[in-house]
Amino acid sequence: MYTLNEIVARFGGEVLGDASVRIVQVATLEGARADQISFFNNPRYRRQLEQTSAGAVIISREAAELTSRPRIVCDDPYAYFARLSAFLNPPQPTVASVHPSAAIHATARVDPTASIGPFVVIGPGAVVGARSALDAGCSLGENASLGVDCRLYANVVVYHDCVIGDRVILHAGAVIGADGFGIAWDAGRWCKIPQIGRVLIGDDVEVGANTTIDRGALDDTVIEEGVKLDNQIQVGHNCRIGAHTAIAGCVGIAGSTRIGRYCRIGGSAMIGGHLDIADHVEISAATGVPKPIRKQGTYTAVYPISAHDDWLRNASHIRHLDALATRVRELEKRLADMERNRS
Amino acid sequence: MYTLNEIVARFGGEVLGDASVRIVQVATLEGARADQISFFNNPRYRRQLEQTSAGAVIISREAAELTSRPRIVCDDPYAYFARLSAFLNPPQPTVASVHPSAAIHATARVDPTASIGPFVVIGPGAVVGARSALDAGCSLGENASLGVDCRLYANVVVYHDCVIGDRVILHAGAVIGADGFGIAWDAGRWCKIPQIGRVLIGDDVEVGANTTIDRGALDDTVIEEGVKLDNQIQVGHNCRIGAHTAIAGCVGIAGSTRIGRYCRIGGSAMIGGHLDIADHVEISAATGVPKPIRKQGTYTAVYPISAHDDWLRNASHIRHLDALATRVRELEKRLADMERNRS
Amino acid sequence: MYTLNEIVARFGGEVLGDASVRIVQVATLEGARADQISFFNNPRYRRQLEQTSAGAVIISREAAELTSRPRIVCDDPYAYFARLSAFLNPPQPTVASVHPSAAIHATARVDPTASIGPFVVIGPGAVVGARSALDAGCSLGENASLGVDCRLYANVVVYHDCVIGDRVILHAGAVIGADGFGIAWDAGRWCKIPQIGRVLIGDDVEVGANTTIDRGALDDTVIEEGVKLDNQIQVGHNCRIGAHTAIAGCVGIAGSTRIGRYCRIGGSAMIGGHLDIADHVEISAATGVPKPIRKQGTYTAVYPISAHDDWLRNASHIRHLDALATRVRELEKRLADMERNRS
Repeated sequence: MYTLNEIVARFGGEVLGDASVRIVQVATLEGARADQISFFNNPRYRRQLEQTSAGAVIISREAAELTSRPRIVCDDPYAYFARLSAFLNPPQPTVASVHPSAAIHATARVDPTASIGPFVVIGPGAVVGARSALDAGCSLGENASLGVDCRLYANVVVYHDCVIGDRVILHAGAVIGADGFGIAWDAGRWCKIPQIGRVLIGDDVEVGANTTIDRGALDDTVIEEGVKLDNQIQVGHNCRIGAHTAIAGCVGIAGSTRIGRYCRIGGSAMIGGHLDIADHVEISAATGVPKPIRKQGTYTAVYPISAHDDWLRNASHIRHLDALATRVRELEKRLADMERNRS
Repeated sequence: MYTLNEIVARFGGEVLGDASVRIVQVATLEGARADQISFFNNPRYRRQLEQTSAGAVIISREAAELTSRPRIVCDDPYAYFARLSAFLNPPQPTVASVHPSAAIHATARVDPTASIGPFVVIGPGAVVGARSALDAGCSLGENASLGVDCRLYANVVVYHDCVIGDRVILHAGAVIGADGFGIAWDAGRWCKIPQIGRVLIGDDVEVGANTTIDRGALDDTVIEEGVKLDNQIQVGHNCRIGAHTAIAGCVGIAGSTRIGRYCRIGGSAMIGGHLDIADHVEISAATGVPKPIRKQGTYTAVYPISAHDDWLRNASHIRHLDALATRVRELEKRLADMERNRS
Repeated sequence: MYTLNEIVARFGGEVLGDASVRIVQVATLEGARADQISFFNNPRYRRQLEQTSAGAVIISREAAELTSRPRIVCDDPYAYFARLSAFLNPPQPTVASVHPSAAIHATARVDPTASIGPFVVIGPGAVVGARSALDAGCSLGENASLGVDCRLYANVVVYHDCVIGDRVILHAGAVIGADGFGIAWDAGRWCKIPQIGRVLIGDDVEVGANTTIDRGALDDTVIEEGVKLDNQIQVGHNCRIGAHTAIAGCVGIAGSTRIGRYCRIGGSAMIGGHLDIADHVEISAATGVPKPIRKQGTYTAVYPISAHDDWLRNASHIRHLDALATRVRELEKRLADMERNRS
């Protein structure tokens, strides 16, 4: 339990109103009780701000007068809330333990401070760093390695030889290092190309549930430090994703594409193969990217939604746009002719 | 084995033709044998109706004369078929059993009528209701609870504190309650926001293979009763999906979106975050939804498919539509000038 | 270690330059060392060709003079490289073994040359063929069968009764045979339709990580021989995918669709249900296919990407294309009137 005074002493900002209010938890504007603090950073939620029962609110200077509740005024309410929530809700510390059912190869090196859950498999030569935790059913392949303070939720699979940094979180069902989609058409059938590269994952990366990152065909697939991947993302072989890039759910990234640092990619986007995407690029949700993007900025490729009947009426013209443009050009010519003749 | 007479006695409808035909199973028009019954509700399959060897056919009154085979005439052949198939193919009853390899925490409460498969993990305080079955490799987290008559296929993961209702089916690889994608940009890197909400799943929900439903950031993610989710769907944190809504495969739903009751969402659709979708809305397959939908109806956003060369020729004009519209306006002005001058 | 002479003796082609160079491994142009061979088949990588340190390069006759390094000239450098890499990197032979933790039903038939990993479950009546390997946590359902020389990576789930051919590779987290999305609307709620078909997978099929293939509702879902499926693909119930078709990641295929032989489908494409797609069809990445495709060729449906502001300006016209076309027709009429009057 912390007073607003104690909170600003730790995290900065300024208190308006009663600074002795005691806070035990963060909450939404809608759900907050008198001993909880909420935040306001989206004008869509103004009505919720007016009606909140929160003991206090984190708010920007510009919006500070929209409520008379006790509040912490700061530059970036969302980041402030994030830091405060992380402080109030620290991850459970890893309890050193090895479940008796775990199958750990004699040549694996598991730090004595690690936590190994039931039915975990750790292959020959694999390494688990200090305070890392593998939940039930995880499988760490031959010679794969895991840094310190990692957390693998249940049923994560890491294939052989992959290298995972420190403080990495892999959610349930994530698959790291499966074979890339490497096939060559040869004499009437597909010939499989051995995938002999690895996956390298940097420090402080988080990978969502059922996300898959393929191993390299020849060189490695690389996820740089601080990258955040949501659920159900597919990263093809030999991709490189630059540091601190964040990618939302269901995105597919084809092989050998390099995405820059500090990019943000919206959900269900599709990035083609062998492309370079610059640093600080934002891709809108559901956007297909078929070519390189060399300049920072926001890029979009989304067909506008409408009622189905309107869609039907308008979409039929898409297949005749070239003819329509030709007709307009023709009209311009004929009209210019008439104007010339008249004068 | 049931005669048509026995079937209509149980499910209604009217028999045309020989009512003593005996039926053991449902089948497609194409594959049915003399002791099987099929159904006709899609005019695309009229040729198959003509050629079927089915012992009987379930059919609408309007189509009843398209075949002379023994048939059951009813209002909704597909629903009739569904009910009959469910009757002929009941789910296997759960056999009470606990596989000796299962890792069940001493504080978990597993109903004695439940079935616990090999390598299942049930965490501290978790609850499994009567006649629920967990297949091999499932993991039920700390304080998670499962109602009665549920079926979890192999390798399902339910994170801590999630609450699952009665008669819920979770297919293999589904992940319930992984952390939502909650990150805040803070001083040059992403700060993880603890995800302290839960997932609540109502009664009679079915969740497809490898579908993921994230836990709430602060409040809960809620899947209301009777919702049907296909495979590989991603439901972001704090979404609420209204009762009896059905969602096809590969759909992504970003965080904090509320989808109404009785909606139908086509495969690979993408629904943006913080949106409200009304009841009874249908979204076409592959449609991106970037804004709220306040009225029931069908909505579509799909670029029309064409041969690649035609696509190339027409698509290049999309990036100049604004200029094209300006040229048309200009033409209208110049033509009006001429018409005025002429008169 | 093989000289270029030995390699062409085995695989054909012609050596230009020093044929005694010794090769131990394949590598990229960028990463190759003096004892490694690379390949050149994409003009984008011409600079890498100029700068490579590779001991030799596989190259086409047309490009053979772009480098003076020792090289193997052949018709199809990529296929040549694939064959050579497969030769240099053979799959690890299966070591016959059954991990003591595996739960194998007494009525299952596991070939003595198979390899059964830790925590694998093999159900009643299931069959595992010679030299097939199941990694940790795989689950083979009742009466499912697996041919010879298959490899199932960790945590693959195969439901009951599915039939898998020879030399099939299933990557981690793949789910074969979950229930199809079969529901009928009936009296205010969804009625589940029992899925009583199976999945049949032909020889030499590869299935990517977390890909799902649903069992048939009545008849079977069929994946023909030589099909290659990337990660995170969803194949609906009763689909048939023709031999040697290759499908990239994140593709969704709705139920009862038949895809021809030798097709190539780009990543994140969406194929609607109940469609026939001809042989030798190519679908571009991110393309939605809402109708049958009866002729071979390449098909595309992608909204062109642009900077977000340009997108905004142009996309707003999509919803008025019908009106724009009407205005152009009107202009044509008025202009024709004037031209007629003038003459």
